[in-house]
Amino acid sequence: MGEFELIRNFFAAAPCAQGGEGVALGIGDDCALLAVAPGEQLAISTDTLVAGVHFADPCDPFLLGQRSLAVAVSDLAAMGATPLAFTLALTLPTVATDWLAAYARGLNAMAQDCAVRLIGGDTTRGPLTLTMTVFGRVPAGRALTRSGARPGDLLCVGGPLGDAAGALPLVLGQRQAAPAVAEPLLARYWSPQPQLALGQALRGKATAALDISDGLLADCGHIAAASSVGLQVVLDTLPLSRPLVDFLGLEGARAAALSGGDDYVLAFTLPPADLTPLQAAGWPVHVVGQVVAGQGVALLDAAGQDITPGIRGYQHFPETP
Amino acid sequence: MGEFELIRNFFAAAPCAQGGEGVALGIGDDCALLAVAPGEQLAISTDTLVAGVHFADPCDPFLLGQRSLAVAVSDLAAMGATPLAFTLALTLPTVATDWLAAYARGLNAMAQDCAVRLIGGDTTRGPLTLTMTVFGRVPAGRALTRSGARPGDLLCVGGPLGDAAGALPLVLGQRQAAPAVAEPLLARYWSPQPQLALGQALRGKATAALDISDGLLADCGHIAAASSVGLQVVLDTLPLSRPLVDFLGLEGARAAALSGGDDYVLAFTLPPADLTPLQAAGWPVHVVGQVVAGQGVALLDAAGQDITPGIRGYQHFPETP
Repeated sequence: MGEFELIRNFFAAAPCAQGGEGVALGIGDDCALLAVAPGEQLAISTDTLVAGVHFADPCDPFLLGQRSLAVAVSDLAAMGATPLAFTLALTLPTVATDWLAAYARGLNAMAQDCAVRLIGGDTTRGPLTLTMTVFGRVPAGRALTRSGARPGDLLCVGGPLGDAAGALPLVLGQRQAAPAVAEPLLARYWSPQPQLALGQALRGKATAALDISDGLLADCGHIAAASSVGLQVVLDTLPLSRPLVDFLGLEGARAAALSGGDDYVLAFTLPPADLTPLQAAGWPVHVVGQVVAGQGVALLDAAGQDITPGIRGYQHFPETP
Repeated sequence: MGEFELIRNFFAAAPCAQGGEGVALGIGDDCALLAVAPGEQLAISTDTLVAGVHFADPCDPFLLGQRSLAVAVSDLAAMGATPLAFTLALTLPTVATDWLAAYARGLNAMAQDCAVRLIGGDTTRGPLTLTMTVFGRVPAGRALTRSGARPGDLLCVGGPLGDAAGALPLVLGQRQAAPAVAEPLLARYWSPQPQLALGQALRGKATAALDISDGLLADCGHIAAASSVGLQVVLDTLPLSRPLVDFLGLEGARAAALSGGDDYVLAFTLPPADLTPLQAAGWPVHVVGQVVAGQGVALLDAAGQDITPGIRGYQHFPETP
């Protein structure tokens, strides 16, 4: 048995690979088989992380296992889907048992958190690259998309922004910070929590949604384009965490929120009448602007003046780290 | 708009990305949405091809486009599934428009041949790597698996074996051959034809099936292990193409058939009573051995003597080219 076959058996034995609802056939055949209940559709998303491009190499394999799955599952949250399963295509330069065991532990921890099952994949030799394809179920016709925002809707986000971008200098070892600041920021970078429950609660309410991976301004641009509307973001309404403001100052924290990547917080548009019931039910819904007729994304100050910067957020494929 | 965003738009405009049966939402949102008909299950497989490991780099991008999709779709054929859709995770070192256009043409040609739609993916910067995840539909409970072979079944294959392995020295430029020999072999390497119709015809008949990617002996080992049976392969029954025998001689051709990779021909086990009706209906069914009580794979000569070689076929991840 070759070493890569051993790896497959290793993942097949992981707790997160032991079947589960909707999994008719898991790892070990030419295909996996998923059952989709009548009246439901399957939501599918693929994400690739390349060593040295999307994460520092070397890095902690346990944290990478958590993060690589969370990033992919976040797309299911953005559609209001319930996670079902995922495949992992893992390309490795060498077979290092300790690395793999730690990676699998991190993957498994996040899979348990998200109730998602490993059903297959591929293991190959080459430069370290991870491609996850995730599957969720959603009632037919009720998935959240990017295309339904209407003028008059509120623009909302599901929590503080910018923490993961703020953590980047810590991840790269370029800066240091006291544990009270560093730990919460690093946790947001390495262990993003896909807002699955919020996404499901927004079905039938939010008119458009996505998860913020490239910074609020850039991602709002996707909603504006898909919905053929304009979006206005009001600078001083941005929710910012205390550790981020302590670390970067208010201006730096706002820049991270607007243009930093890797938040994996939901951004969505909502008819005003739906705001209070959602907040009253305890959902984290922060109004950061509104939808208007027009196109593109504008940044406004508290007085309503347009202060849109030239930047449009991260390029989608930042070369850092 | 960044160059990688341009690539996404480029693929989104490809003919094979224009929706189709079962595709409720295609490229452009956080997830694609697939509809699965009542009574059907979704078959899913992921395959990664790494430059310099699974294909020569550089190579013809049109041919790579064809081959990368065919290799993945072949897993659907092995389950008896009908192709529905695929995602493409494409990691590229640089953005070369000509290369991309040719790759997309090859991809599109194979997608049309297989009636499969591009519904999403990811485009990233890094060492050239392709990960395809393919989706097919199959009547619930009727997928072909590896685990149902029973003693007394015939061991069959869907066509000549070894051509792709025979082509490898031509692909790598290590040998040359006359066009009458080289062209058919190279076609089998670069444009494998997933045996989709055969796979569907075998539903309810074949007791086990897979597609041969690692050589007949190694892949028969997977059926033997999954079904808890032994398989006997009879050497002089192997179907071999004339170009392969011309190129490698009979012994070389047999070695390529037994231990070469990349055939993507189906291997399956069949109750004897099902053989004649399938052959009479015109299906390419070649008997190459039988299923016996026991375990593992044995190679027999025409007299029934065990001549099993030490080799078990390619290691799953050959380092060539």
